[in-house]
Formats: sequence, structure tokens, C-alpha cells
Amino acid sequence: MTETPPLVDQHCHGVLRTELGLGTFEAELGPRAARPAPGTTFFDTQAGFAIRRWCPPLLGLEPHCPPARYLARRRELGAAEAGRRLLRGSGTAVYLVDTGVPGDLTPPGEMATSAGAEAHEIVRLEPLAGRVADACGTVEEFLSSLAGAVYGAARTAVAFASAAAVRGGLALEPGAPGPGEVRRAVSHWLAIRRPGELPAAPVLLRHALWTAVGTGLPLQLHLGDDDPMPLGDFAAATSGLGTSLVLLHGYPHHRSAARLTGLFSHVYADLGTALATTGARAAAVLAETLELAPFGKLLYSSGARGLPELHVVGARLFHEALGRVLGGWVGDGAWARRDADRVATMLAGANARRVYGLA
Amino acid sequence: MTETPPLVDQHCHGVLRTELGLGTFEAELGPRAARPAPGTTFFDTQAGFAIRRWCPPLLGLEPHCPPARYLARRRELGAAEAGRRLLRGSGTAVYLVDTGVPGDLTPPGEMATSAGAEAHEIVRLEPLAGRVADACGTVEEFLSSLAGAVYGAARTAVAFASAAAVRGGLALEPGAPGPGEVRRAVSHWLAIRRPGELPAAPVLLRHALWTAVGTGLPLQLHLGDDDPMPLGDFAAATSGLGTSLVLLHGYPHHRSAARLTGLFSHVYADLGTALATTGARAAAVLAETLELAPFGKLLYSSGARGLPELHVVGARLFHEALGRVLGGWVGDGAWARRDADRVATMLAGANARRVYGLA
Amino acid sequence: MTETPPLVDQHCHGVLRTELGLGTFEAELGPRAARPAPGTTFFDTQAGFAIRRWCPPLLGLEPHCPPARYLARRRELGAAEAGRRLLRGSGTAVYLVDTGVPGDLTPPGEMATSAGAEAHEIVRLEPLAGRVADACGTVEEFLSSLAGAVYGAARTAVAFASAAAVRGGLALEPGAPGPGEVRRAVSHWLAIRRPGELPAAPVLLRHALWTAVGTGLPLQLHLGDDDPMPLGDFAAATSGLGTSLVLLHGYPHHRSAARLTGLFSHVYADLGTALATTGARAAAVLAETLELAPFGKLLYSSGARGLPELHVVGARLFHEALGRVLGGWVGDGAWARRDADRVATMLAGANARRVYGLA
Repeated sequence: MTETPPLVDQHCHGVLRTELGLGTFEAELGPRAARPAPGTTFFDTQAGFAIRRWCPPLLGLEPHCPPARYLARRRELGAAEAGRRLLRGSGTAVYLVDTGVPGDLTPPGEMATSAGAEAHEIVRLEPLAGRVADACGTVEEFLSSLAGAVYGAARTAVAFASAAAVRGGLALEPGAPGPGEVRRAVSHWLAIRRPGELPAAPVLLRHALWTAVGTGLPLQLHLGDDDPMPLGDFAAATSGLGTSLVLLHGYPHHRSAARLTGLFSHVYADLGTALATTGARAAAVLAETLELAPFGKLLYSSGARGLPELHVVGARLFHEALGRVLGGWVGDGAWARRDADRVATMLAGANARRVYGLA
Repeated sequence: MTETPPLVDQHCHGVLRTELGLGTFEAELGPRAARPAPGTTFFDTQAGFAIRRWCPPLLGLEPHCPPARYLARRRELGAAEAGRRLLRGSGTAVYLVDTGVPGDLTPPGEMATSAGAEAHEIVRLEPLAGRVADACGTVEEFLSSLAGAVYGAARTAVAFASAAAVRGGLALEPGAPGPGEVRRAVSHWLAIRRPGELPAAPVLLRHALWTAVGTGLPLQLHLGDDDPMPLGDFAAATSGLGTSLVLLHGYPHHRSAARLTGLFSHVYADLGTALATTGARAAAVLAETLELAPFGKLLYSSGARGLPELHVVGARLFHEALGRVLGGWVGDGAWARRDADRVATMLAGANARRVYGLA
Repeated sequence: MTETPPLVDQHCHGVLRTELGLGTFEAELGPRAARPAPGTTFFDTQAGFAIRRWCPPLLGLEPHCPPARYLARRRELGAAEAGRRLLRGSGTAVYLVDTGVPGDLTPPGEMATSAGAEAHEIVRLEPLAGRVADACGTVEEFLSSLAGAVYGAARTAVAFASAAAVRGGLALEPGAPGPGEVRRAVSHWLAIRRPGELPAAPVLLRHALWTAVGTGLPLQLHLGDDDPMPLGDFAAATSGLGTSLVLLHGYPHHRSAARLTGLFSHVYADLGTALATTGARAAAVLAETLELAPFGKLLYSSGARGLPELHVVGARLFHEALGRVLGGWVGDGAWARRDADRVATMLAGANARRVYGLA
């Protein structure tokens, strides 16, 4: 079997510090803000089953033990010690941590200590702009502070991320907005916003995005639920500027995301989330992503947030899926073993190390 | 292997009472109103091959015997007796029968007798509105009769269905239309319509839909050929009202339909049609649907219409596909056997019994 | 195992006459005009790996030998001799060659000689219109010359192709443009165009398309990157006119393309490109296409251009994928062997022979 080297998790978040019960744990298994229907539970999902497969053994239990048994053991150990055991059992060497989501989540430094791994920060643009707006009274102040904050962040962060730009219409209007447009939008926003509010207007989102493009750091774009092909115009507009674009969360349009990576030399696609959320189907989804993307353009991630169990599940499913998919092709004679080993190394971390300039 | 319990077929139609020849039988195998190209036949489809696999043995013939041989035997038995043998051989315990399609099809009571099973009615909104319009001269009469007909139907039916609302733009304009808008649309429609004509104007379709939502019965929505994600706005608008939405015919966008079931606690997705029409590929399509949907949100159906062969094929393909997919995951260690058995029970009927309030 | 008969490659282009080095060869492996990212290569793609699997043995080398070794051997033989060995090793009996792409590519006659096979021409409409415009000064001249050129081409060509019509908005506006509209668009175009320029205005594209529809020859439509379902309106508009429409390059929307072939008796879908570009995944993609399409409506092609290696890879992958997919279904009992053999014959060439009127 193809050996996967230690992973670079190119997009994840920190883990919750609080102790979790059945309800609070379950809430982390479904889509953000979603609730299970009466008579159903989010434990009955691929993510729930994958956690029950991979995580109990790391805490000394049988695979597939009931959720209540697992959570009792987790509380017995305490969230910190359980997190430590889980993260260290995931086989991940480097975590790139997007710090821009709400909740009491561990920051990169604490992730590194807990996991016995390397960790770097990804700065999300919308909360950064929100913090700048909280501290600024005028348009001029906001614009210069935002530029300062973005360039400042670029000194220590490994990447920027935008969660809202694609949903905010980036595909329809890909270019950098003009200075007059930006000033009007900022002025309107500062006049109406409540403290803590994040920018949502398309002009504001694009201004933040294009400011980040100017730094040359890679830019991670959360895709919405639509086909990413229309993002080709933004890819064309940023071609040759030296900034890599990394498409996150392509599923179920991961084949289109993969296609874009072949069309534009600076566009990359993420393998994450789809693995953890599809569980027993991770190999099938990975295989689809490997159809059209050049193998140098795909990056592993867990997409995990809140539960260290999700960091584990992402890593284990990727490891197993990669072995099964590439191993199958070697077995069929379609691929040479040395090519499979090389591609495994690229996807697991070498591509990410090159894109983010990691050692 | 995982045992599938007797099925609840949560969306099908009655069967044709007339004797069928090669041409009339073949016409039921393709899409509605479609014709095969010269030199080709709809028997050469996955549906055709699946019928030839599963149905001849129920009539005492070899699997895969030629269509002409099969149809000769079918005529020898007579349509009624053949239908009886086929339906009883399908392993279905309950049929939910959408009675709103044209053609000389058996109603629920006759389906129950013929199949030796339980049957309940699903009332389709467009023909209901058409019948009301046939009997009414004024806007006031129509509106009060429609409300009466919908609430009257809700006393005996288990669900409503709309075949046209999604194609009629429900995703673009999800809200209930205002009274003035409705009155104008009804007035215009009553002035121009010919007897028997079904409503097609978006305002009429949405008015019928929102009237049905008021009854609290589950509402089945036939998806069009586009990605169902934009239906999220209608799902958001009906959230918390107590009415379940069941998405029908998601293929080839079944992954998006599955995703919607996770995002909204009152949204469910159908497994039907895709199974019968994809035949030898049913397990692959089922596996894709099981990626993102919580397992409590998927409902088996055959989607069959006209030919009892399609009720058989839907049931047999589902049974086989479910066993293969879940059995494979158990064999890999990805799922525990007891979980697989539990999920099989949910998909085969327990979810439907809960959603439709069946015993 | 199911035997595949000699193939009819229903859509390909000629091969390059020049000798190729690593860089010029690699450029033919990615999407048109795309470049690999720094630190990556288009040899690390499914297409690259598939070439390394299937082609070296035809030139006397080991499968999967390094690209540099393969290209050295290729230069040693010379492009002409290498091309001869490759094409003759592909198992293709008939090539339909689209001659409307730029580059020093072998025309059909030379393909036939080199491959020891039959070859026919497919005439692409946009370059044909461009050549007519180069030679005409007035709107009248252009319109009558274009009609003459199209009808003239129809005497020897087996099909027309349009690469731009779908991207040019055919789905939005499917009908034939009116004479006034056409005259205005031609007049504008002749006034501004530079020699050699191809038509891009939607009215010009549709005029060329509808002129070709008038000849009754099959019309091949390159799909864009969007879902082809909206092309249903063009299919409806051309229904019953006697012209077959063949959808090219459906991936990743091949399931929608397959669905269209069932809805319209004159619509066909291509299996090509997706096979060569997805390599080890060709069987999976083929199986998806076989879900909804009637088996009489699918046509093999390689979609190859420039490199005879791509003609080989398309043919070999199709052969292997077909054997694996149909063989699997026969092994499961889902299909009868004689049906599988019959369907293999249809897809490999019999359908194409019927559609294009080949002997």
C-alpha cells in the first residue's frame, strides 16, 4: 500500500475548550445553524458514523461504540486531554488555522501545543474588516486602517480567506471596485452598521479581497452552493498577479472546481470537508476530484471546526481514501507505483508546502 | 447481509388497466411524451434491462427473456392478473399513490386490493385546482372552493404534491402571493381557460401551494431539471410552519437535494425514480445520495407509473442497492452492522411512516 | 469478456506533423492555452498517466516509462512513423475529423493513410464563415456565399460542428434569427472585422447553425462548461427537421447530456474527451453516462487533437472501460451477456454508422 506522509491540513479551525454533552456535540455535526428533525439525530450521518469509527480507539474504546458511551469517556478525560489525544492521533504535521469564526476556539499556538504539531494562521477578511470598522469613525480612517491591517496580517499569516465573497456575487462582478464606489459603500456601511457586524455588501467584500490580492499571499475562497465555473472571470482577472487562489468546499461541484485548477495556473482546489462529511464515501469523492485536476493543484484539508474529532476524521478518511483510490489504480496497472507514491506525497502536503511557502 | 423490511413506497401512481403491446409498453419506458429515435428502442435502456431482469421470473419466465416473449406471457395472464403477481412480488407493504396524472390508472383502493397491501392517496394540487375551476364561475367562488377542496382532501389524503411549482419559478419567488395578486391571476385565468386546463401561472401555483402548506400535511415537490439549491428560500419561508417538504426526482442533482435535507429540519428527499431509471447503476446513485443527507431524511419510493413492472423494479433495485451499499460499508469496517440495519429500516419505511403519520 | 469491435471515432482532429520536445508535448496535455503552475507539470494528470500507460508499448518501450525516455524514442522514430504506429495500434476503423482548428494538423486523407483506416471530414462552421467573410465585401455576397459554402460542404462532409454556438448563448435564444437581424449583424461584422477573424456575435453564430440545420447533416455542438439542460429549447426547435444533434464534451454535466438524449429523439451524446482526460476514472464516467441515456443514443469518440497518443488513449480507455462496466453488470446478473455484446457494438460504432450514414 501507498504510504501517506504526515499531513499538512491546509484549512481548519481551532477546537472548542468547553466540555460537551450529547446535544452540544451533536450540534457540531450538522451544517452550521441547522437542527435535526424531530425523531432524527445528526449522529445518523456519515460524519457521525465516521467519528464513531475512528475516534473511540484513540480514547481507549471500541470503534462504533454508542455516542453516549463515547461522550462519557470524553468527559472523564476532560476536553483538553481528549483533544490532545485526538489531535496527536490524527497524523497531521501542520495545521493552517482560520481564526475568523466565532466561538471559544483554540488559536494556532494552542493548537500547535495540544497537537504536538506546527500551526500557522489564516486570516479571514470579513472579521478583519469588521474589527477595523469597530475602531474607525470615518471613511478615510477605515480605508487606511484596513489596508494597514491587511498588510500587517500578511507579515505573520500564511494566507487570507474569504467566506462571503463568492456568495456576495464575486462571480458576477469579478473586478476590483473603483475608489468612488468603495468610498460610497464604506460611508453607507459605517453609517448603518452595529458594532461587531461583518461587511456583506458586494463592493466591500471585493475591496477587501482585492486588497488582500495585493499582498501576494494565497487567498482561500469558500465556494457557495453553486457551480464554481463562473469564478473563471475572477481567476482570469487575478492571473499573473502572483497570488494563488485556493477554492474551498467545492462539493457537490468538486469536479468543476477541479476543472478550474487545470484552466488557471494560479488556481488550486481543496480536498477537505467533502471527506469528513461524506465519510464512507470519501474515496469515491476523492476519486472524482482526481479526474480533471492536475495532481499538483490539489491540497488536503480537514475543514474541521470545533471538534478535534473532525480533525481526526478528515485526516484518517483522507489517508484511507488515498490509499484505496491510488492503490486500486496501481493494482489495475493504470498507474505506476512510484507515480502513486509521488502523487500521494503531493496531495498530503508537498503541494501545500509549496503554495504557502512552508519549510 | 442487511435485511430490508417491507417497503413503504412513498410516491407512485396507479397501473394501467389496459392490455399492452410492444409499442404501448415501450412508450411507458422513456420520459413522458418522448419517442425513441429511428433504429433504437426504449427497451435498450437501464429501465428496460432492469424490467427484463426482475419481472419475467414473477410471471414464470427466465430473467432477460426477449421483450416480445415477456409481453406474450403478460397478455396470456391478462393485465389484471399480471399486475397482481407483479405488485405482490415487489415486497412493498404500503403504497402512497399520487392520483393526479392522466390515464386509466388504478386508484389507491384498487392498488391495495391488487397488491395485497395498504394504499393511501397523495392529492396533486394542479388537477385539484383545475377541477375547482371547471366548476366555478367567479373569483370568489374559485377561491373559497379551492380552500374547501384542499382542506377537504387533507382529511383523507396523506400528502399533497405539486408537479409544476418548481418549474413555475418557486425558487425565484418563494413567498405566498398577496390577495390582490391572487385575485387578478384567478380572474385572468378563469377568463381565458378552456375546461380541463391546469393552472400554469406562477401566482396560481404558489397560491395552491401555500394553501396546502396551511393544512400541515407533507408536501411533495417535483423538482425540475435544475439544481434544487435555490429552493432553499422556499424552505426557509416554510420553516417552523409544521409542514414537511419532500423533494422528488432530484437526479442528477440528488447530491444537492441531499444537502438541503441537512440544512432544513423539515426538508426530506426521495430516493425514487433515480433507482428505476438507472437500473444497474442504482447502488451508485443511492450511495451518492447517502453522502450528505442525514439518514433520517431519506425516503424510498419507486416513482412508478402505469406499469406494475416499474413498481417491482423500483423495489427490487432499492432492496439490492441498499444491501450492496450498506453491506460494503460494513465489510470495510466503516459502519457497524447494527447501524446499517437501523439505517436500512429507516430508509425502507420507518422515515416515511413518521413523516406521513402511518401506523 | 465482452469484445469491442473496431471503433468509429466520431469526433477528433488531425495530428501534428512537427517533432515535439518535452515542453511542446506537455502543452498538448492540458486545456487549450492553459499553462502548468510553477513546480507542476501537465504530465502529472490523468491524461499524462494514461499516455504513459498505453503508448510506450506501441513504440517498443515499457509502460509508465518516464516522459523524457518516451519522447526520445518518439524523436528517434520521427513524428510520422510514431504517429503511424500509434494510430494503427488504437483499434480504430473510422475517424471523423473536425478540420476547423488552427495548427499544422493532418487532414482526413492523411489521417486515413497514416492510420490504415477510413476518414471523413467534419466541417466546423465558425472558420467556414470566417473564410467566406475574408472573400466577401458586401452583406449580399456574404450571405449567398455562406449558404453556398455550407451546402457545398454538405456534399462531402459527414457532419457540421459548432464550437461557439452554445457559449454564444444558444440556450438563451434558440430560434433562427430573422433576415433583418442577420443582415444588420453581418453588416456590422464585415465593417469591423480583421482578416481571419471568426464570428462571435450570437446572431451570426445562430445564422450559421440554422443554415447548417437546413442541410440535414448531423450537427455536433461543443457544450460549454454549464449544464446542457437549457439546450432543450434548441432541441425542441429543431425536432422533426431531420437533423441530428450530437452533444460534445458534456463532462462534468454528462448526466444532463445523457438525459437530453432520452427526451429528444434526434439528440445524441458523445462519450469522448471525458474518457481521455479522466484516465483511470474512464470506467466510472462511462458508467454515469450509461445511467439515463438510451443505449442507441451514445457515440464513442476520442476527442483527440494534435497528439496521436490521445487517439490511442481515447480508444484504449473506452475499450477497457466498456469491458469493465458492462462485464461487471453481466457478472452481477443485472444484464444478459448477449445484451452487453449488443450494446458494446452500438456504442463502439454501430450508432455512429447509423447517425452519419457510414457504410
